[in-house]
Amino acid sequence: MKRIKFVILAFVVLFSISLQAQQPVKPKNIILMIGDGMGLAQISAGKTYKGQLNLEKMKVIGLLTTYSCDEYVTDSAAGATAMSTGYKTKNVAIGIDCNGEKRETVLEHANKIGKSTGIVVVCAITHATPAAFVAHVPDRNMQIEIAEQIAKEANTDLYLGTGWGWFLPKSKGGRRNDTLDLIEVMKKRGYFYISKPEEFYNLDIKNVNKLLGLFAENHPPYAPDRKPTLAEMTKKAIEFLSRDKDGFFLMVEGSQIDWAGHDNNSDQILKEMADFDDAIGVALDFAQKDGNTLVIVTADHETGGYALVNGSVSERKVEGKFITKSHTGIMVPVFAFGPGAEAFAGFGDNTLIGKKIFEYLKK
Amino acid sequence: MKRIKFVILAFVVLFSISLQAQQPVKPKNIILMIGDGMGLAQISAGKTYKGQLNLEKMKVIGLLTTYSCDEYVTDSAAGATAMSTGYKTKNVAIGIDCNGEKRETVLEHANKIGKSTGIVVVCAITHATPAAFVAHVPDRNMQIEIAEQIAKEANTDLYLGTGWGWFLPKSKGGRRNDTLDLIEVMKKRGYFYISKPEEFYNLDIKNVNKLLGLFAENHPPYAPDRKPTLAEMTKKAIEFLSRDKDGFFLMVEGSQIDWAGHDNNSDQILKEMADFDDAIGVALDFAQKDGNTLVIVTADHETGGYALVNGSVSERKVEGKFITKSHTGIMVPVFAFGPGAEAFAGFGDNTLIGKKIFEYLKK
Repeated sequence: MKRIKFVILAFVVLFSISLQAQQPVKPKNIILMIGDGMGLAQISAGKTYKGQLNLEKMKVIGLLTTYSCDEYVTDSAAGATAMSTGYKTKNVAIGIDCNGEKRETVLEHANKIGKSTGIVVVCAITHATPAAFVAHVPDRNMQIEIAEQIAKEANTDLYLGTGWGWFLPKSKGGRRNDTLDLIEVMKKRGYFYISKPEEFYNLDIKNVNKLLGLFAENHPPYAPDRKPTLAEMTKKAIEFLSRDKDGFFLMVEGSQIDWAGHDNNSDQILKEMADFDDAIGVALDFAQKDGNTLVIVTADHETGGYALVNGSVSERKVEGKFITKSHTGIMVPVFAFGPGAEAFAGFGDNTLIGKKIFEYLKK
Repeated sequence: MKRIKFVILAFVVLFSISLQAQQPVKPKNIILMIGDGMGLAQISAGKTYKGQLNLEKMKVIGLLTTYSCDEYVTDSAAGATAMSTGYKTKNVAIGIDCNGEKRETVLEHANKIGKSTGIVVVCAITHATPAAFVAHVPDRNMQIEIAEQIAKEANTDLYLGTGWGWFLPKSKGGRRNDTLDLIEVMKKRGYFYISKPEEFYNLDIKNVNKLLGLFAENHPPYAPDRKPTLAEMTKKAIEFLSRDKDGFFLMVEGSQIDWAGHDNNSDQILKEMADFDDAIGVALDFAQKDGNTLVIVTADHETGGYALVNGSVSERKVEGKFITKSHTGIMVPVFAFGPGAEAFAGFGDNTLIGKKIFEYLKK
């Protein structure tokens, strides 16, 4: 009898070890962080400027191709759609595939299976990248329609960003030619609405179930002149969403790295990189403590053909030059941390982001 | 008694499992492949041109800073020295540290501990990158002295490249103002010398212990006009070196990716990337079969501030533009495959290459 007992014991131990190795990965929480226009040159510049990046804590690195259905060089709409849905689309399209068919986004699916969801950006939430997670239109410039879809159809639990002008009629200081007050619509759907930094800093989330924070009429200024900062909003969002015992999906965008690239403004790239990396630090701190959170950091494309022609590591200076005011087709790095991170190692395509997140949500 | 036997059995099994996980990695063979001037844009362009790269088989990716002691933007001498010795040095310096002190190279150390060693390049073997593994001079332009060190002091078992002019006096068609015939010196030291492609293709390595193959007076032409090709030489080198039961260290350089960058010649970058990637394929094929070979692929720096402003995935076309005729300070990717590969994941500095190889050799 005793002999049998020990044989069973040995097998149970070995079996549980092998089981652990085979167990499908299923992170409870997923934080996808998109540095818009953040190529390797932007990351290199950010590292020189900041000395050490929080990003460096992420050991799993991959490289993603970013081309869209119709162009070698993607725009942010097609890039974000590839990541939000796992499908390529044409440039300027949002939440639809190459054939114009509407595709479910990872955020929508996370909602559907009972997870909390959030969007944190430093641009209008109707802008291309956030829109690709919560709306479906053939053209990113249809921000009037995107706002209506966000207000009436999307079930996202939290928005922190800007762009209230897209939600209000002209009579109320907004941009809409119709008479819709979409802020009122969202309030009726249960959203607690704030539009001032003080409201953000004083917010007690205890009795708030759905949050809409829009802190500028359209876009906020360049870093560091933004309040609240991306890191502050990321922290609040995680605090808010992590109350859900079923887990959450959060998309955070460093929106203005891209704009500094379009402006060929190297000094501003450094500031935007530092700002985005602060938010990465917040996400990684949570993920490290939580142990069940996958953090993915990547970009939709590189902007500017940015090159570092000189600099100083000790003085944290970079002399950057640009080839274009537009995007380029260079692959973008992807960084991952937490359960399921390994799937992002090596070469891939930007659709891998959407496909893998769906896989993790569906398992 | 039987009970004790089974307890012991269970513990032995568990202990051996845990031991396996902790065992220090020590690859028998190490192949370091340096794409000179191969930034992420060059890799991206190569991927578009070739469709699929052999490089994509490498799942472990890191990103390396490349600055030298005295410059944010490194040259190939300081870049290669960081990788060959694990020490930073000033631009143009070869095999010495920031203070001018001579530093042992990983190739020299591999020789010392009884491994076979080789250098395979598509440039003169006295050029900066190969020189940094086998010579020690304050200035890369001292190719006359580098040739003398290679001929008289280095114990490398195999050289395949070009540049016989640096080894012969002017009276024999070479570049030397002295009367030294360093080819004769090397023959006396046991090297079998070949200088014609036919000799390479017909070579029976059975009775050859040390090989010196130099197929042009100085540098060979651009790909694909080179014979033998980098892939052919890499294959021969592995065949030659892998006869050593103690293992080998081989450095392979895709030398002319850099030159195409300096020439701002996008089409030639594609051809040089394809050529280098063919050699990567040869190394990975061997490593896959062998199971005890670490392959590391990286670059010393990026050249040209190369950007992909347009292209076509289906037509395998790239429209590239350049910011400079010189190098840039963008981080370079490193790829690793085989035992010990994990050490190269994440962010690092170019000295990590030398440090880790030393660690693997010394363990």
